[in-house]
Amino acid sequence: MIGLPDIEAAAERIRPLVRRTPLLAGTQARSPVTKGTLLLKLECLQPSGSFKARGASNKLLSLSPRELRLGLVAASGGNHGLAVARCAAVSGVAATIFLPENVSPEKIAKIRQWGATTIVAGASFDEANRGALAFSEQEGATYFHSFADPLIVAGQGTVGLEIFQDAPETDVVIVAVGGGGFITGAGLALKALKPSLKVVGVEPVGSPTLHASLRADKVVSLDTVTTRIPTMACKRTDEQLFALTRQVVDEVVLVEDSDMEAAARWLWFEFGLAADPSGAAAIAALATGKVQVEAGQTVSVPVCGAGLPISIDGI
Amino acid sequence: MIGLPDIEAAAERIRPLVRRTPLLAGTQARSPVTKGTLLLKLECLQPSGSFKARGASNKLLSLSPRELRLGLVAASGGNHGLAVARCAAVSGVAATIFLPENVSPEKIAKIRQWGATTIVAGASFDEANRGALAFSEQEGATYFHSFADPLIVAGQGTVGLEIFQDAPETDVVIVAVGGGGFITGAGLALKALKPSLKVVGVEPVGSPTLHASLRADKVVSLDTVTTRIPTMACKRTDEQLFALTRQVVDEVVLVEDSDMEAAARWLWFEFGLAADPSGAAAIAALATGKVQVEAGQTVSVPVCGAGLPISIDGI
Repeated sequence: MIGLPDIEAAAERIRPLVRRTPLLAGTQARSPVTKGTLLLKLECLQPSGSFKARGASNKLLSLSPRELRLGLVAASGGNHGLAVARCAAVSGVAATIFLPENVSPEKIAKIRQWGATTIVAGASFDEANRGALAFSEQEGATYFHSFADPLIVAGQGTVGLEIFQDAPETDVVIVAVGGGGFITGAGLALKALKPSLKVVGVEPVGSPTLHASLRADKVVSLDTVTTRIPTMACKRTDEQLFALTRQVVDEVVLVEDSDMEAAARWLWFEFGLAADPSGAAAIAALATGKVQVEAGQTVSVPVCGAGLPISIDGI
Repeated sequence: MIGLPDIEAAAERIRPLVRRTPLLAGTQARSPVTKGTLLLKLECLQPSGSFKARGASNKLLSLSPRELRLGLVAASGGNHGLAVARCAAVSGVAATIFLPENVSPEKIAKIRQWGATTIVAGASFDEANRGALAFSEQEGATYFHSFADPLIVAGQGTVGLEIFQDAPETDVVIVAVGGGGFITGAGLALKALKPSLKVVGVEPVGSPTLHASLRADKVVSLDTVTTRIPTMACKRTDEQLFALTRQVVDEVVLVEDSDMEAAARWLWFEFGLAADPSGAAAIAALATGKVQVEAGQTVSVPVCGAGLPISIDGI
């Protein structure tokens, strides 16, 4: 599907459309979540609020003027939709974003602020995705898959490149998993550059797609998805993608939705960072001890998406 | 009162207690607020959520064990109180923070989370401050003034040092003004390092303390303060401080509270940054055209405090 050269090419291509986000030293926490050195890759500061700007921009820049004119369409738990809406705004074309019912109102508002049409369709990503595919078929709009697309995966992988460039001493990278595009892209870059580096995924207990697939060593379809975190809800990854995922992911750990919400409050209290629960998933993996990093080791975690910490008043 | 060597000494002293915050290139905005190159100094990522951690830490490190044991006390519109509460927590001593009635509930919650006692006392900073002074007198707790203290001013000034170190090409720095400590400290550092650099203050129309004092060329007491932004409400600056302020501040512009709230929403939409209105004041000065920066010039602005963008649902 893709390799390091595709990711390096993506980094070059998308440079005019994304930000080089800081890798912040995670020092001075009142309640540290690891004995190791923590580095926070602030992807929540990307245009559109997440790393998804990278993959979507890489896809956008592959389209012909004719394809562009017919507009863009995507299904999303929120962040990918925001990124596609922003791509359309940058290009001056229309975007239609299909969303599951549990997406945050704040993300819907932002998608509209980018000028896109939002359609809430169904209880899950899969239902919303059917709507997006049907729309693409009818209207000719280019469909942006949120993970099963080599251009999207290569774009997300540029986060891995930058982590290695800024902190080659990194021993462990922990990545939140939805469909598996981000961890696969970032993992491909990181493992190619430093094979000894450990790549760990985090999934909600209520959506253990990749966890189950790695255990079975084949793509597994979940019967039900019960997480309330829409950006991490996914019944099934992609066959071609999984062939790469299994090569670069060392382990997937599972955390509760409430662990991620607590981790988002931690990021807000300790760092003034407003992350959505998936943006805090890697912190949850450390805080719960699901991933242990020893003193002297360096763990880099993307704070992958912006969002308002849940029940902030209740801190 | 102080000069560059004091600020350099503060930088060295406070290093173990604060973060080196990133200076983020403000590229890729959908709706740019300046023709110039915008750099965002992310002080909202400091421990306790603002640059106030710097001054308070510098003061803290000057205290004797005996002084420390008697605890700390401060009056604050929010951010200084958070910084003092955090100093006390770091040192394992008690802190009491006096706050005006209009301080944000979210900031009160964070101050309590640091383990401090909060006392809401009066409608304005000045009333809260009287409470803090009386408490210090009675209990022997060390009083941390939010701006009229050379150690506090030198600590805040370290932001200026870092901006110059990271972006010596900076032509203009825009700083939100409450009592005047931050702009004076940062201005002293910046003007000493690069005399041609322009230092511009921003005050609310409803609290033009420094604006009025610079116009009169002497410290002026405002009759009324009508801004609803507690971190920028101040009736009167300090005589000794003002003697320095007038040497380093080129100009003060006034913006409406609503301009700052709009700028906070801009930072959230464009950068995923959750800033309080004072944290967005410099952006408001650019967005309203009160400060004009030409193409080819570089303007660096501290995003000086974290907070939840007001009426986020209404975006």
